[in-house]
Amino acid sequence: MTHSKPFLSDNAAPVHPRLWEAMRAADEPDNPYDGDQLSAQLDARFTALFGRDCAVLWAATGTAANCLALATMCAPHGAVVCHREAHIEVDEGGAPGFFLHGAKLMLAEGEGAKLTPADVAALIDPIRNDVHQVQPHAIAITQASEYGRTYTPAELAALGAFARDRKLGLHMDGARFANAAAFLGGSAEAAARAASGPVDSLAFGFIKNGGMSAEAVVLFDPDRAAEVRYRRKRAGHLQCKGRYLAAQILAMLEDGLWLANAAHANAAAREVAAGCGDRLLHPVEANELFVRLTLVEREALRARGFAFYDWGADSARFVTAWNTRAEDAAALGKAIASL
Amino acid sequence: MTHSKPFLSDNAAPVHPRLWEAMRAADEPDNPYDGDQLSAQLDARFTALFGRDCAVLWAATGTAANCLALATMCAPHGAVVCHREAHIEVDEGGAPGFFLHGAKLMLAEGEGAKLTPADVAALIDPIRNDVHQVQPHAIAITQASEYGRTYTPAELAALGAFARDRKLGLHMDGARFANAAAFLGGSAEAAARAASGPVDSLAFGFIKNGGMSAEAVVLFDPDRAAEVRYRRKRAGHLQCKGRYLAAQILAMLEDGLWLANAAHANAAAREVAAGCGDRLLHPVEANELFVRLTLVEREALRARGFAFYDWGADSARFVTAWNTRAEDAAALGKAIASL
Amino acid sequence: MTHSKPFLSDNAAPVHPRLWEAMRAADEPDNPYDGDQLSAQLDARFTALFGRDCAVLWAATGTAANCLALATMCAPHGAVVCHREAHIEVDEGGAPGFFLHGAKLMLAEGEGAKLTPADVAALIDPIRNDVHQVQPHAIAITQASEYGRTYTPAELAALGAFARDRKLGLHMDGARFANAAAFLGGSAEAAARAASGPVDSLAFGFIKNGGMSAEAVVLFDPDRAAEVRYRRKRAGHLQCKGRYLAAQILAMLEDGLWLANAAHANAAAREVAAGCGDRLLHPVEANELFVRLTLVEREALRARGFAFYDWGADSARFVTAWNTRAEDAAALGKAIASL
Amino acid sequence: MTHSKPFLSDNAAPVHPRLWEAMRAADEPDNPYDGDQLSAQLDARFTALFGRDCAVLWAATGTAANCLALATMCAPHGAVVCHREAHIEVDEGGAPGFFLHGAKLMLAEGEGAKLTPADVAALIDPIRNDVHQVQPHAIAITQASEYGRTYTPAELAALGAFARDRKLGLHMDGARFANAAAFLGGSAEAAARAASGPVDSLAFGFIKNGGMSAEAVVLFDPDRAAEVRYRRKRAGHLQCKGRYLAAQILAMLEDGLWLANAAHANAAAREVAAGCGDRLLHPVEANELFVRLTLVEREALRARGFAFYDWGADSARFVTAWNTRAEDAAALGKAIASL
Repeated sequence: MTHSKPFLSDNAAPVHPRLWEAMRAADEPDNPYDGDQLSAQLDARFTALFGRDCAVLWAATGTAANCLALATMCAPHGAVVCHREAHIEVDEGGAPGFFLHGAKLMLAEGEGAKLTPADVAALIDPIRNDVHQVQPHAIAITQASEYGRTYTPAELAALGAFARDRKLGLHMDGARFANAAAFLGGSAEAAARAASGPVDSLAFGFIKNGGMSAEAVVLFDPDRAAEVRYRRKRAGHLQCKGRYLAAQILAMLEDGLWLANAAHANAAAREVAAGCGDRLLHPVEANELFVRLTLVEREALRARGFAFYDWGADSARFVTAWNTRAEDAAALGKAIASL
Repeated sequence: MTHSKPFLSDNAAPVHPRLWEAMRAADEPDNPYDGDQLSAQLDARFTALFGRDCAVLWAATGTAANCLALATMCAPHGAVVCHREAHIEVDEGGAPGFFLHGAKLMLAEGEGAKLTPADVAALIDPIRNDVHQVQPHAIAITQASEYGRTYTPAELAALGAFARDRKLGLHMDGARFANAAAFLGGSAEAAARAASGPVDSLAFGFIKNGGMSAEAVVLFDPDRAAEVRYRRKRAGHLQCKGRYLAAQILAMLEDGLWLANAAHANAAAREVAAGCGDRLLHPVEANELFVRLTLVEREALRARGFAFYDWGADSARFVTAWNTRAEDAAALGKAIASL
Repeated sequence: MTHSKPFLSDNAAPVHPRLWEAMRAADEPDNPYDGDQLSAQLDARFTALFGRDCAVLWAATGTAANCLALATMCAPHGAVVCHREAHIEVDEGGAPGFFLHGAKLMLAEGEGAKLTPADVAALIDPIRNDVHQVQPHAIAITQASEYGRTYTPAELAALGAFARDRKLGLHMDGARFANAAAFLGGSAEAAARAASGPVDSLAFGFIKNGGMSAEAVVLFDPDRAAEVRYRRKRAGHLQCKGRYLAAQILAMLEDGLWLANAAHANAAAREVAAGCGDRLLHPVEANELFVRLTLVEREALRARGFAFYDWGADSARFVTAWNTRAEDAAALGKAIASL
Repeated sequence: MTHSKPFLSDNAAPVHPRLWEAMRAADEPDNPYDGDQLSAQLDARFTALFGRDCAVLWAATGTAANCLALATMCAPHGAVVCHREAHIEVDEGGAPGFFLHGAKLMLAEGEGAKLTPADVAALIDPIRNDVHQVQPHAIAITQASEYGRTYTPAELAALGAFARDRKLGLHMDGARFANAAAFLGGSAEAAARAASGPVDSLAFGFIKNGGMSAEAVVLFDPDRAAEVRYRRKRAGHLQCKGRYLAAQILAMLEDGLWLANAAHANAAAREVAAGCGDRLLHPVEANELFVRLTLVEREALRARGFAFYDWGADSARFVTAWNTRAEDAAALGKAIASL
């Protein structure tokens, strides 16, 4: 299949040249696993980025990053509340059940695949406080959400206060965290700030944003890092040559590449959105577009070289990436507008 | 730490240049996960290599590769027999317990960290055939073993016949499979052949042999691949951009690079061994040396720039790799001989 | 609390006198665990009852009985489809996640807490056949359902055919199986017959029907019994003195006590129902009644000595049992009618 | 098989008459599960017995009791140290792997199936403090041990101090705790006292001592009870009619029946031991005897009506119980002496 004008997904985009350079530069012998000099820099670099003490581990997939973090805040006999369309529920092959030893996902409703305190309360308030019913231990949200929606600082603050009141952990799946942060003005700290401090943990994604194989598990309570390190090894996720993963992440943080890449993708998405009018199913707040398009219309677009996925019977999903060409985005926007 | 003459481990060696090239060449958009054109070639390439139908999946670590394969042959209420010093028992952070949902490792004795049918029988024959005792479901062996020893075809044939008689699966941890194959004359097929056919599964290692992040799970019963694919995803090991892993493996198979790299490492190990005389704790049949050396002797070697790990109080372990310089190996052999 | 006229639940009723006798009669030394002469009779007794070869194990709770059976038909990476209000989802404290090692429960809608093929298809047909989504491996239904509804032979036949077509296991939670069988005319075989043969497994409940601590796991494929025996031991459910559990079950099967007890409870429920008119939320097909009653009405009933649970804000649940006095049932029916 | 003079095991003995009475007396309706008035008395009764605050739950098997307690003190990625011949390792069908989600058992050596601090240190001191190796989280000991040996208060104090120093939990498998306490002079508190306080948890067995189906999980840190309650339900061990289990336990505590039964069994064992001379493989400190006997000698004993298990090729195991007749014990002792 030729992908002349690809809007299929950001998860198959090429690796950014600066990451190739960084990986090649790491091609000197160093200690194996995460004992190398690059991995050793992660804590400090993210602490600087967030303005908060944090401990950071790399992992090769978002699935692993999410589940390793969740496992520290939800016992096997507990549950994690997430949106009915959350990636951890829908697209991770049951990984939470594996990493959390059979803990449940409890599925809340919520507009735009986002959760509000009221959404979570509606789900968990009816749960009897007895051993016959699984009790919630944590909440997992996605920033930006599965529909490309972004939690504002006010929304996060409300959720954070709710989680604290209910003694629930709060995890953020940040597969497209950079896009959310770019939308919110560029502050990583603001995009992960809940109530009086950050969320408990963040799976900070880099792979969809120009990386090859490295996501970051960011733990804002550094004392939890030891447990996650044991769990990571036990899950077969402690790679021998971890320096190549650390190199990717450090290159991403260097000179704000993570933010520039995301801003580029977001801008491309806005360019497409400009042509979509009321076809849009969701406001465009990151790098994904969900667009009402008939089958005939989709075929017409594909005939013009645009590649994308169907989204149900009557819509399509378009995803922009760090490498989306501005002219392709503009062309797609115009093509949709002209349908 | 300067590693001027490094013999610490092959697991931290640089990535081979041809793999860098292959990864860069994969830097075109393709389908995500393992839907790309490179991953699609794995089955055929390994089938050709082994002269046997097989299905092959990449995984980022040997731990994951071993455990994904073992999970298909041992139920949660069963056990895997392995050597007391097997890597899966000693150095994988309890990963088998995680991937196999609490199945046991049963620890056999055996010379050189190898197992014979008699070794296994001594362990499992006393087990009562009742529900109070965990029953063995599979055997896991390491080729080359944790002491750098290699199973001969005759030894494998005997173990394979034993496993078949006892209705036990047979898995081979091949973190250094290439070194074993090189020692045995260069045939991958011979190095994994048990009784009338190959072992049931092989974790074929490439990372210690010049790779960056890709091992191969080789299933000689291709019908088991579907289950392993689900388990891999569920364990967070299905990477988005799998083409970079497939590219590494395909480059390794190209023109026998896997074998050439291993042969180089083995030759370097023999060069060192030539200076060790009766200091050797084990015959050198791959790329590891276990050498009796006093603390003073070890300090003398380190003072001359050789880097290596202690092995207990009175010995040292030296590991050669695809990039070990011949002159360093020769120098080390001479240095030991001159102690 | 005085329970002068108790309709709270059948799960706290006294033990039937014939079971006490049977247990006392078992008070001779015999082999421990399930090696005794009583446990040895179970297979034959249930095979006679169902007219089908089956293997039968006792377990102390319905939760264990359900989960032990389900574990043989759903891999850890799979899912069990059940009703959103199924006991295994709502009231077993996450036990399926534990026994099935993190497998999912997929929640279907269905009238009266029953499932039809269409209900299940609506849930599972949208699931993509790829590793990112958990695949269904089995269906679990409850006979009688959580709302006291009974599957007719025709309904079971349709579900059985559907399960077979989709290659899904079919398990029946029979906590109140006796009540369902009594409603259907008294045939155990008819109450568990799906398509061309019985369901794959049945958790045949006795505790709510006059037992103390014994349910039966009935496996209509006797070859699966060995695995269940290992799993039962591993779950700590193989009791030392299993003869006391077998004694209860055998006494229940003797002279149709199981059916007589259930018929008694059903008759009492019908007696109550006669006074409920259109207050009934569900047809009464077993021994549970869900009745629309205001808070004031419920208080009035309680003031007259009737004990029962609220069911939401506007209703109540009444459960009859093997020991419900006919006069109490009649009195309750009249009391409701007179409100 | 006729068991005219049974010394096979205490785990198949009849139920003590006072427990039958207590169960029958519990045959009034009460709240289900553990909400009944009998279960509610457990905490206070055991607190009085031990002179220490404790929370107590019933469970139907020692396997469940042990594993529920251990699960609160060992994470899935950790290990429990126990003796190589501990019941949890040898005879519980892998239950610890199930309840602890794949945590390991680490097997220590120790005389008489007992552990000393030195035994445990010899096992765990070589473990590297890194993520590649599973770390110990707890120690499990058996009182009386699998060879009928008893830990003295001094031995327990030493182990308790060691566990505290190493930050390891300390669990006691008390399947025959009563026999140990009887041997030590009759104080439950002394038999479970470690260092400055009791062990962390005790599986206090009653089934081998005249019970039918109830063991007690005694948690000396009552704050851990909530977690155990959730885990018990999730493991299918929360029985509907828990009052019958509580009734057994309360009857056992009434007037020291637990101690009288055990003292009786111990006395019978001593009576047998008196005839064994230097045939004894272990000192007799509870109700088990391991006796060197040739095959011919064992056949001679069996011909005289004594029933018992072989213990390896050259020995036999005899177990006395609460109902062992004094004349049978005397006869057995004489018969052995006369061989």
